[in-house]
Amino acid sequence: MDTTQIRLAQRPVGEPDASTFTTVTEALPELADGQVSLAIRYLSLDPYMRGRLSTAKSYADPLEIGDVMIGGTVGEVVESRFDGLLPGDFVLSYSGWQTAAIADGNQVRKLDPSVAPVTTALGVLGMPGFTAYAGLLEIGRPKEGETVVVAAGTGPVGSAVGQIARIKGARAVGIAGGPDKVRALTEDFGFDAAIDHRAPDFVDQLRAATPDGIDVYFENVGGAVFDAVRRRLNTYARIPVCGLIANYNLTSAPEGPDQMAGLMGQILTKSLTIRGFIQSEFTRSHGRDFVRDMGEWVGSGQVRYLEDVVDGLENAPSAFAGMLRGENFGKLVVKVG
Amino acid sequence: MDTTQIRLAQRPVGEPDASTFTTVTEALPELADGQVSLAIRYLSLDPYMRGRLSTAKSYADPLEIGDVMIGGTVGEVVESRFDGLLPGDFVLSYSGWQTAAIADGNQVRKLDPSVAPVTTALGVLGMPGFTAYAGLLEIGRPKEGETVVVAAGTGPVGSAVGQIARIKGARAVGIAGGPDKVRALTEDFGFDAAIDHRAPDFVDQLRAATPDGIDVYFENVGGAVFDAVRRRLNTYARIPVCGLIANYNLTSAPEGPDQMAGLMGQILTKSLTIRGFIQSEFTRSHGRDFVRDMGEWVGSGQVRYLEDVVDGLENAPSAFAGMLRGENFGKLVVKVG
Repeated sequence: MDTTQIRLAQRPVGEPDASTFTTVTEALPELADGQVSLAIRYLSLDPYMRGRLSTAKSYADPLEIGDVMIGGTVGEVVESRFDGLLPGDFVLSYSGWQTAAIADGNQVRKLDPSVAPVTTALGVLGMPGFTAYAGLLEIGRPKEGETVVVAAGTGPVGSAVGQIARIKGARAVGIAGGPDKVRALTEDFGFDAAIDHRAPDFVDQLRAATPDGIDVYFENVGGAVFDAVRRRLNTYARIPVCGLIANYNLTSAPEGPDQMAGLMGQILTKSLTIRGFIQSEFTRSHGRDFVRDMGEWVGSGQVRYLEDVVDGLENAPSAFAGMLRGENFGKLVVKVG
Repeated sequence: MDTTQIRLAQRPVGEPDASTFTTVTEALPELADGQVSLAIRYLSLDPYMRGRLSTAKSYADPLEIGDVMIGGTVGEVVESRFDGLLPGDFVLSYSGWQTAAIADGNQVRKLDPSVAPVTTALGVLGMPGFTAYAGLLEIGRPKEGETVVVAAGTGPVGSAVGQIARIKGARAVGIAGGPDKVRALTEDFGFDAAIDHRAPDFVDQLRAATPDGIDVYFENVGGAVFDAVRRRLNTYARIPVCGLIANYNLTSAPEGPDQMAGLMGQILTKSLTIRGFIQSEFTRSHGRDFVRDMGEWVGSGQVRYLEDVVDGLENAPSAFAGMLRGENFGKLVVKVG
């Protein structure tokens, strides 16, 4: 059985492009006891992958040149030497950007397609959904009547943040780029207000949408949006930071003036809490509750989700670069098989 | 009975100077029932006062032009129409920069000079000590063996932070300006290591003094010290922010490049917690424990303190400006009487 793999060819300076990646086809090794072979059906594309392309210090080691691009995947078992998995079973694995893979049976999670579409394991019921759930509830801690703001609001994290905020009785304000996404925020996801960060009067719109200020800003974007939002934060506001997609392609610190002293001054005088996190640090404490709550909310329709499915592994590089520019509309998934 | 008052004459642009203040002498009003008249003996000078001179939004309203400068004071009761206070009693009040004042008896706290020198109510056993105690224990939460770093280490907050950190089993690293203060950090306050932020090799010294990185940085300074410290923070480090004295006289944002994106990136990839606070938000939750613990530690000599006493209210303006430049050596107190 062969696998076609997309590997890191060279580290991008700024935006990743065609020269960042290389494609290789090779034979999979023989199955060992306890392993399964997988035909990859879906690959998840997520902003965090950009961080793994650079050598900057982070919570995870960077990819080496020549490594297969990492990523969450849904695969179908082709051959099994693991008790409890049979050919035809769907599993969640971390097989990366390739068409087939070998995995240890105890490193994958079996999915039940009758409960929810298997792609949700990469989105609302998977890592992005858990990022929203744990970050909002553990760090953001929205109280009834408070205002929660989130950017990239139609993305898998942002859309879940807004809907969970509303379930908890808070007012949810979503930010997105362009009229279609802004419409989806209120119409599809039920945000109380939606604003367009590309609009020339974005700052005024933000002010109008947050008449009582902002109590929780769920930060997954950074850049100009953060700069506008931070001026409307209330005393004791909480800012969970799970991503900074606007900054990921930066090649050097932006031009001045230096806003850091200003930010620290706000943190001081408004008693702000800013807390960076990666969802995995909350798996032990919140994982079980997430499976229960989110399964229930998705099942009942209280939490909806939107997928942007791109066809063909060969289109993963351009879809990935587009995502970093905000071009995806919903959770970005590559249909591989 | 007359009082000589120092009032705000005009808002300073940058450093406050002689033109910032004006001195007025006037008669105190008659005592009403429930009030006491006070001869002010000591006035506390603290960095937070700089914030009250500007109109920038903060947790407290700014002073108006013509207002008496605010501040904590130790006064001696001259005349009393309040049950429980007699002439000759010492009290903690918030009478500001003046030689005498009227106060409501239930707005002051009686001090017992036989337990501790009355000036400690303005320092280690007062607001600065409580700032250190609550910020370090509630936000910093040092664990045994962790590294705690604090700047302005000989000041009333920094010296208490270092000593409490050691009581909790952490390693305390102090930062101060100049060889005399650096010596005091280890010799008088028992810090495990001490470094001079004015030394040309400050960054190297910081690295050598924190071989295991930094788990808690108690931020009361800002500026270049923070910029060096933040590069050595460990994953899950906590940063209580109680002051930014290096920034208080800034008249505009510093020149670029803009470090804000870099700071947010660190917050994200290291799962940092940054939390601004003012001590008063913890009075209800930690005030009683502070009085018990700090009283015990000061009594037993486990927590030592250093006072810098300036003679004469007329010298308060220059002492205040000097403090903002880091010229005081210990808790700055003006002997008024």
